Amino acid sequence: MSQPEQKEFIHPKGYLSVAKNVGIKDETLDLTVIYSEKRANAAAMFTRSRFPGAPVIVGREHVADGFAQAVVVNSKNANVAMGRPGIDDAREMCRLVAGELGIAERDVLPFSTGVIGRPLPMEKIRAGLKGIRGELEPNGLELAARAIMTTDRWPKFISRRVGNAVIAGIAKGVGMIEPNMATMLVYLMTDAELPANSLKPMLKRVVDRTFNSMSIDTDTSTSDTVVLMANSLAGAVDAAEFERALLDVSEHLAREIARNGEGATKLITVEVSGAKDDAQAKRVAKAVVNSPLVKTAVYGCDPNWGRVIAAIGKCFDDTDIEPAKTTIRFGDAEVFEHGAPVDCDLEALRAYLGKDEVTIGVDLGIANGAARVWGCDLTEEYIKENAYYTT
Amino acid sequence: MSQPEQKEFIHPKGYLSVAKNVGIKDETLDLTVIYSEKRANAAAMFTRSRFPGAPVIVGREHVADGFAQAVVVNSKNANVAMGRPGIDDAREMCRLVAGELGIAERDVLPFSTGVIGRPLPMEKIRAGLKGIRGELEPNGLELAARAIMTTDRWPKFISRRVGNAVIAGIAKGVGMIEPNMATMLVYLMTDAELPANSLKPMLKRVVDRTFNSMSIDTDTSTSDTVVLMANSLAGAVDAAEFERALLDVSEHLAREIARNGEGATKLITVEVSGAKDDAQAKRVAKAVVNSPLVKTAVYGCDPNWGRVIAAIGKCFDDTDIEPAKTTIRFGDAEVFEHGAPVDCDLEALRAYLGKDEVTIGVDLGIANGAARVWGCDLTEEYIKENAYYTT
Repeated sequence: MSQPEQKEFIHPKGYLSVAKNVGIKDETLDLTVIYSEKRANAAAMFTRSRFPGAPVIVGREHVADGFAQAVVVNSKNANVAMGRPGIDDAREMCRLVAGELGIAERDVLPFSTGVIGRPLPMEKIRAGLKGIRGELEPNGLELAARAIMTTDRWPKFISRRVGNAVIAGIAKGVGMIEPNMATMLVYLMTDAELPANSLKPMLKRVVDRTFNSMSIDTDTSTSDTVVLMANSLAGAVDAAEFERALLDVSEHLAREIARNGEGATKLITVEVSGAKDDAQAKRVAKAVVNSPLVKTAVYGCDPNWGRVIAAIGKCFDDTDIEPAKTTIRFGDAEVFEHGAPVDCDLEALRAYLGKDEVTIGVDLGIANGAARVWGCDLTEEYIKENAYYTT
Repeated sequence: MSQPEQKEFIHPKGYLSVAKNVGIKDETLDLTVIYSEKRANAAAMFTRSRFPGAPVIVGREHVADGFAQAVVVNSKNANVAMGRPGIDDAREMCRLVAGELGIAERDVLPFSTGVIGRPLPMEKIRAGLKGIRGELEPNGLELAARAIMTTDRWPKFISRRVGNAVIAGIAKGVGMIEPNMATMLVYLMTDAELPANSLKPMLKRVVDRTFNSMSIDTDTSTSDTVVLMANSLAGAVDAAEFERALLDVSEHLAREIARNGEGATKLITVEVSGAKDDAQAKRVAKAVVNSPLVKTAVYGCDPNWGRVIAAIGKCFDDTDIEPAKTTIRFGDAEVFEHGAPVDCDLEALRAYLGKDEVTIGVDLGIANGAARVWGCDLTEEYIKENAYYTT
């Protein structure tokens, strides 16, 4: 897979940034700071991992008051599983940025992505943060999107207009976990003015339908985070229109992350309808999109719907799911209906599975619950990237 | 991996069998019947799949009375997702065997393993079953173990003496699901005399600690089954001793199945201790053994314990799990303790991960719950076997 064509990227007002190399691992960009000239309303959602990274622990504290003014991100080292010194390092990153920018320490959110279990090279980070005030530039978010990459093959960014305001999003992530240093980080920035107490619930609704509806390899990272900042510089917008645009931006980034999954050659979308409720639909959709045998079948262009059957069958506790009510589609072609195979054109199915984007549809025939999730195929390249990477 | 050395295989009294090729797919053995001269007490455990194969549906009915006298198994076709005709075919297999052997139809348990979604070639099976009474032989269980193979690289069988009695077990399975036609089937046969009502609970206890503590790729089959038959011909045995031997036989077969996982080069054992209870220990152990990133790290001999950390962290609802209480070992070497890395010899760890059998130990430091599970590494060969197999 290669990078899709990018539309013109519009910047929201008042967000400045710097992206640079401080030599954490190699010569690529590895440190970025994004700064909002006006203190922004902010909401964030973090990994549910029981072993969260130090920046997650500190970030949760800092965003709890609903405000943020800057984020600082390093790549190539995750600052995870380092005990107390890791927490101290994350706090120091915030303190240094706050000092440089003349803002409150708790208005800075820290992020690190990369290898687990190694101390952050703080001397390099300290040197890199010195003097950043003078280095901040407008229109720098595309570079910031590059600086947060680890094994991502291309930067992920998008923007949308909402009334007079703009939403911009940047993201990284190629597996759900390091190595290959693969935490998902997403920054959504807008100059819209939004009621402070609406941010968190809106972000949760959007994340559930986008980033939490995507899986590359089931391995949830210790550091996944999505942050939304709204600095109000463009004034008020229609809330419903804003949420639709935020959903659009987030869906684009979620699909980009899945498409760029480690070793992936195809984006897989699984659409489940006719479920008891949306939660059941998502459970079934995730069972299908995460099945190694479905993923390898799609990779090999093998129209083997038996693997989809078996994956659905793994939802043991959903006793209302029955073969006789279930329909399965590859693209528009039905392959299984009412408990029995549909006679179909195998060559046409193989050709369909050869495309860059493949959709598997499942109708459970129970009620009206629905869900859509994204994933990718599983290839030898995934194994190579993850087996031969040496810490 | 190659077939391990087999100990001498002892047959329990009164079990005759036949194994043959009837041409379902190729020239390898594809049909077997195992017959107990005396009607046996029997118990079975079946897949929890919501899309069970036709033989599972019929087998559940037939074993419900606690008796069985014969099993009939074909490989190369799973008889799954075929609707009503599939059920009719499974019943006909039982009826034909019952007629040939002069036993009750409901004392025959049917099994099929192979591709999903194709009609059983009943004319071949009918021809193959004709005259089997005259073909039954004693001491034929090793051949039966071959006849149930699909992509298994070697047959799996073992026996143990218990007092005057013998327990013999045969098994197949290389993924949790077809293709590569990989349902797990296990037949445990003994000539011991055991109280009829003790069979099912004993089988459940043993299966929970063996076959349900093993995972190759998380894809549960539509047809997994474990059957225990006890025909009493060797008289009574000590129940506790018998259960220990049954556990030993089952553990051997479970490890053999994991070791022979599709594409596997290594057997991985994950031992969790110090959990709140055994259920939590098993949940954590399965999260680790099923993590694609842990599996690829072991394949690549990469002592990357950060992936174990992340896998444990995925047990989101186990809020009593804390990094500061957790210890992680590769073999005997501690790599993480009290929330921080242990300084260790990376070369020695790499050498350890290069062995055929690798043990990852996790102590949660909460209470005394424990569990042990088996799995295997994830390799390019798994991808190839599952991507390029064409239905």
